[in-house]
Amino acid sequence: MLARRFYSSVASKPTIGFVGLGQMGFPMAANLMKKTGSPFVVFDAFPATASKFVENAKDLKAQNQSVSVAATPRDLAAQCDVIVTMLPAGPHVKSVYLDAETGLLAGIKGRNNVLLVDSSTIDVATSKHVAETVGNAGAVMLDAPVSGGTLGAEAGTLTFMVGSPSVTTFNTVKDTILVHMGKNIVHCGTVGNGQVAKICNNMMLGISMVAASETMNLGVRLGMDPKLLAGIINTSSGRCWSTDTYNPCPGVLPNVPASRDYTGGFGTSLMAKDLSLAVSAAHESKSTVTLGAVAHQIYNQVSSQKEFKNKDFSSVYKWLNDNQEKI
Amino acid sequence: MLARRFYSSVASKPTIGFVGLGQMGFPMAANLMKKTGSPFVVFDAFPATASKFVENAKDLKAQNQSVSVAATPRDLAAQCDVIVTMLPAGPHVKSVYLDAETGLLAGIKGRNNVLLVDSSTIDVATSKHVAETVGNAGAVMLDAPVSGGTLGAEAGTLTFMVGSPSVTTFNTVKDTILVHMGKNIVHCGTVGNGQVAKICNNMMLGISMVAASETMNLGVRLGMDPKLLAGIINTSSGRCWSTDTYNPCPGVLPNVPASRDYTGGFGTSLMAKDLSLAVSAAHESKSTVTLGAVAHQIYNQVSSQKEFKNKDFSSVYKWLNDNQEKI
Amino acid sequence: MLARRFYSSVASKPTIGFVGLGQMGFPMAANLMKKTGSPFVVFDAFPATASKFVENAKDLKAQNQSVSVAATPRDLAAQCDVIVTMLPAGPHVKSVYLDAETGLLAGIKGRNNVLLVDSSTIDVATSKHVAETVGNAGAVMLDAPVSGGTLGAEAGTLTFMVGSPSVTTFNTVKDTILVHMGKNIVHCGTVGNGQVAKICNNMMLGISMVAASETMNLGVRLGMDPKLLAGIINTSSGRCWSTDTYNPCPGVLPNVPASRDYTGGFGTSLMAKDLSLAVSAAHESKSTVTLGAVAHQIYNQVSSQKEFKNKDFSSVYKWLNDNQEKI
Amino acid sequence: MLARRFYSSVASKPTIGFVGLGQMGFPMAANLMKKTGSPFVVFDAFPATASKFVENAKDLKAQNQSVSVAATPRDLAAQCDVIVTMLPAGPHVKSVYLDAETGLLAGIKGRNNVLLVDSSTIDVATSKHVAETVGNAGAVMLDAPVSGGTLGAEAGTLTFMVGSPSVTTFNTVKDTILVHMGKNIVHCGTVGNGQVAKICNNMMLGISMVAASETMNLGVRLGMDPKLLAGIINTSSGRCWSTDTYNPCPGVLPNVPASRDYTGGFGTSLMAKDLSLAVSAAHESKSTVTLGAVAHQIYNQVSSQKEFKNKDFSSVYKWLNDNQEKI
Repeated sequence: MLARRFYSSVASKPTIGFVGLGQMGFPMAANLMKKTGSPFVVFDAFPATASKFVENAKDLKAQNQSVSVAATPRDLAAQCDVIVTMLPAGPHVKSVYLDAETGLLAGIKGRNNVLLVDSSTIDVATSKHVAETVGNAGAVMLDAPVSGGTLGAEAGTLTFMVGSPSVTTFNTVKDTILVHMGKNIVHCGTVGNGQVAKICNNMMLGISMVAASETMNLGVRLGMDPKLLAGIINTSSGRCWSTDTYNPCPGVLPNVPASRDYTGGFGTSLMAKDLSLAVSAAHESKSTVTLGAVAHQIYNQVSSQKEFKNKDFSSVYKWLNDNQEKI
Repeated sequence: MLARRFYSSVASKPTIGFVGLGQMGFPMAANLMKKTGSPFVVFDAFPATASKFVENAKDLKAQNQSVSVAATPRDLAAQCDVIVTMLPAGPHVKSVYLDAETGLLAGIKGRNNVLLVDSSTIDVATSKHVAETVGNAGAVMLDAPVSGGTLGAEAGTLTFMVGSPSVTTFNTVKDTILVHMGKNIVHCGTVGNGQVAKICNNMMLGISMVAASETMNLGVRLGMDPKLLAGIINTSSGRCWSTDTYNPCPGVLPNVPASRDYTGGFGTSLMAKDLSLAVSAAHESKSTVTLGAVAHQIYNQVSSQKEFKNKDFSSVYKWLNDNQEKI
Repeated sequence: MLARRFYSSVASKPTIGFVGLGQMGFPMAANLMKKTGSPFVVFDAFPATASKFVENAKDLKAQNQSVSVAATPRDLAAQCDVIVTMLPAGPHVKSVYLDAETGLLAGIKGRNNVLLVDSSTIDVATSKHVAETVGNAGAVMLDAPVSGGTLGAEAGTLTFMVGSPSVTTFNTVKDTILVHMGKNIVHCGTVGNGQVAKICNNMMLGISMVAASETMNLGVRLGMDPKLLAGIINTSSGRCWSTDTYNPCPGVLPNVPASRDYTGGFGTSLMAKDLSLAVSAAHESKSTVTLGAVAHQIYNQVSSQKEFKNKDFSSVYKWLNDNQEKI
Repeated sequence: MLARRFYSSVASKPTIGFVGLGQMGFPMAANLMKKTGSPFVVFDAFPATASKFVENAKDLKAQNQSVSVAATPRDLAAQCDVIVTMLPAGPHVKSVYLDAETGLLAGIKGRNNVLLVDSSTIDVATSKHVAETVGNAGAVMLDAPVSGGTLGAEAGTLTFMVGSPSVTTFNTVKDTILVHMGKNIVHCGTVGNGQVAKICNNMMLGISMVAASETMNLGVRLGMDPKLLAGIINTSSGRCWSTDTYNPCPGVLPNVPASRDYTGGFGTSLMAKDLSLAVSAAHESKSTVTLGAVAHQIYNQVSSQKEFKNKDFSSVYKWLNDNQEKI
């Protein structure tokens, strides 16, 4: 139904708005703009960033694609049919969507066929609260957090985990918007479930990576060859993505951060953030996540150190290794 | 060299000894006896168990295969070319091999072509110490702990993780002995490395299973469908054996303990034991295994409860679920 | 300076407002009203609760002390010189103080000699943010969370941990307000530090109580008499409030919750809440609190169980004891 | 009874033996020798250490006190009425007491009035096993581990935690032996309970110290003055020996290791060892010690680092502080 409303409302190409042009948002917006050819409006808290985005788009403008900067999220919303947001944390999302003076919701008043897609990774409670408020105002908001990092954002190969009120809306958003920024687009159920899926996967991942690091470190210190040990685990019940695809021990796999001094990849601070979201969601829902909480503290500690704060999250192996007696 | 000695010494079929006829040892010994057709000698701390084993073998005896009970490990060793041991813990292994009066070593004095294979899961330090003592006496001991449980023992499909002083010896033992009890036989390096590989894999497994349980429980309590959540994780970076092959949440996978009230499988107490071995080995080698230690405490607690002590180790999911507010 | 403004502005008795008449706030407000004899205005989210408070005060009204209910925090603020708030969590505090339509701040516009005292236990970030906003509007807010439970609230013997912009203001608030509800009133430094002191003390307490429970349980299971063990620890370096004043093992001390089936005292859910605040504050300040995080998960789990959710926080001993093999 | 046997057997002064002249044993033995004036026999695994001990005692020899070195524990036992042992770990105790060729037990054959006192800190299981074996042979062994460190050993102010088969024996050993090396001598119940009391106290202590470090670090990073924070905690429910007597934050207390760069005191490695014993005893007795296990891993990690391995155990505060972002 909404999908029908949506299509009928956009005779030719819908106008697309993008809020949040950070390290992830900038390349995502660039891909979306180029691949859709839609009229495009952007907003960023730093006006210089928004100007730079438009400056970069002058080739497209030369081909008559409209690209402009809005003064506020509200102004942006007033011009757009579809809006994507990519923001650092819950309070930013709340403010960008709901601020009475400058928020997106204020800008779409009366037009209930606007689609809003939030790709930020934020706490489940805020995500559901904002979506509900948007819904009460007659519009539709989906949560669609991503994985794949800046490389995926640039290459347009992100994974989107999408919470959507209906399959039809999911399909509309997937086909007209997300497909231009990502490769793997998964429907996770109702609104908020995109966030749930992401923090669940990333909590599992964070624990597994610490576990893989502890295990590889223990085995090596007890005299095992690391490749041999990884081979045994990878054909046994200890197998996981962190051992068979992204092994944290240098030299075991060729093209992973561990084999290039932990550069590139997914930073320790981002893992600390995602584990914090998981621990908070567990507290809210009265769920126990003991290993999640310990992994969170470990990434808190590792990401606080100068040497590790800009390294890939598999560098927890190196951290263990540096902080122990040589044998 | 040893392999040559071994073969030249056994004109036709070597006499095989088996010490330790418990839940694992009994079916392992039965397979080995039947498939090799070798003269067979057994010993168990409970004479009735050894008698029962021989009683069960009367068909083979009728076909002229010799099967007998020894009074002590020493007496057994005195009659055998190859000896397999399957014992509960380090102190038993130490006593069975090294006791001055009744031990295996006392029984092979002067015959340095006897092969000893210990399939017990014990601490690395004891395993290396016993192997070294055996080696100093001129014989050869390999460690070859198993995974696969009682079902694998009965079906002859165990995995053996083997520490061996040489590839030749490994191949000899594999082809003449282990192949009759297992399917997947892995050379893990020098003596003691079988134990290292096993505790590393099982520490990784224990942590992963708790993590999978925390993750599935959190997601379900936050409103996700468990099959959908498992599907997303299993195609993402959180994927592991505990989510894609042995998922602890009932109903996600059809033929796993979780879907039959956690019966069968690998017991919580066995996981507690293996994690204890890992934590001890970490202490000895001054390695840090924080998640391993927490997982150990969790299995300690779960396996101490009447309801869970005989359940599969994936029942940590049920334990989490039972001990929380209903939503 | 502010103190001077405050006194000069209240010729005789200042009018006092109280927002939040829950299990703690109700008896605190009753003490404050009775002991000051000041004109009194109350607000609660449940109008029936506010009415009941006024009904209870009819004796005082008969003696001409004014006691009334306000329609909103804003209306309350418009009538008061001093306002005390006692609310469940950060979002409530934010809304009661800052809501543009109904908040306290809207009610004191232009009167910059109003004193606001928040006795809620909330997250440090919200506390500082609200105090700063109040300060920017020209008024003064102090944070003054309490310990001592409902018994302390009723007896007027609470401990207040107070963050105040100056010693003078602290003294004013202490002498005119807090002294009527508490016995031990501590200046913890600048605004927000009341919350910091409280969560630091309670994190230390939560960890100590779990530690005392693990220790007493271990010793008893290894054969020690619990009183003897407690006596040894209490004269040694393991001594703490949780062992020498509030021992969690039944029978060791006479007048503690442990010796009356863990009734009364400080509930497991409140400890879970305070540990959650500590873990969040640690995340915000990039501090590592590994034991704090594990204790949080343990209280999360314990307080989720029907049997323990209304028990004193020392019942973690019973929880350990119930969940283990009998010896 | 034993006490009577003991006294009647030693007409004048009993001959005392001391095995294990390490950093603790050497000054303990020196005090015992000087204060009793008894004939003295020593043994150490390093003959040079034993010789040095005798060399140091030449003044006493000049006054006709007999001081000599025995070739083995067995030879020592053959000459002594009372024997004190101070050894690094369980295996050493087992070997020194029970070795068939060279052990103490072999040296006291037939003389069932010899008293043996083991002051080593070892695992409970070994302690009980050795005591039982000694008892079966007709002699009596007490466990009497100490706290107080090398300073206490030198000053003769150690605390002894004593497991003894009877109060009479405890009193005999206390009055004739332990009082010369220590100040606080506590009867903890039956044999083995000295070890239990010690590991329980030290587990409580290790957890408390990590907790105090996390708490002080968190409070300081949130803006509290450390002395003020310590003062508040020390008069509240978070109070413990690690905050009020041995605070790990530099500058809070004057005469503690924290205020002299963590020199002196009780080393991180010793705490790692004691926590390891506690975790093992918990495993043996199927007790859960989650915080104990995490504290163990933390001390494992800290004591493995060059910078901390020779520092006092309160340096975990500095470790936390070094490994985090500066604020």
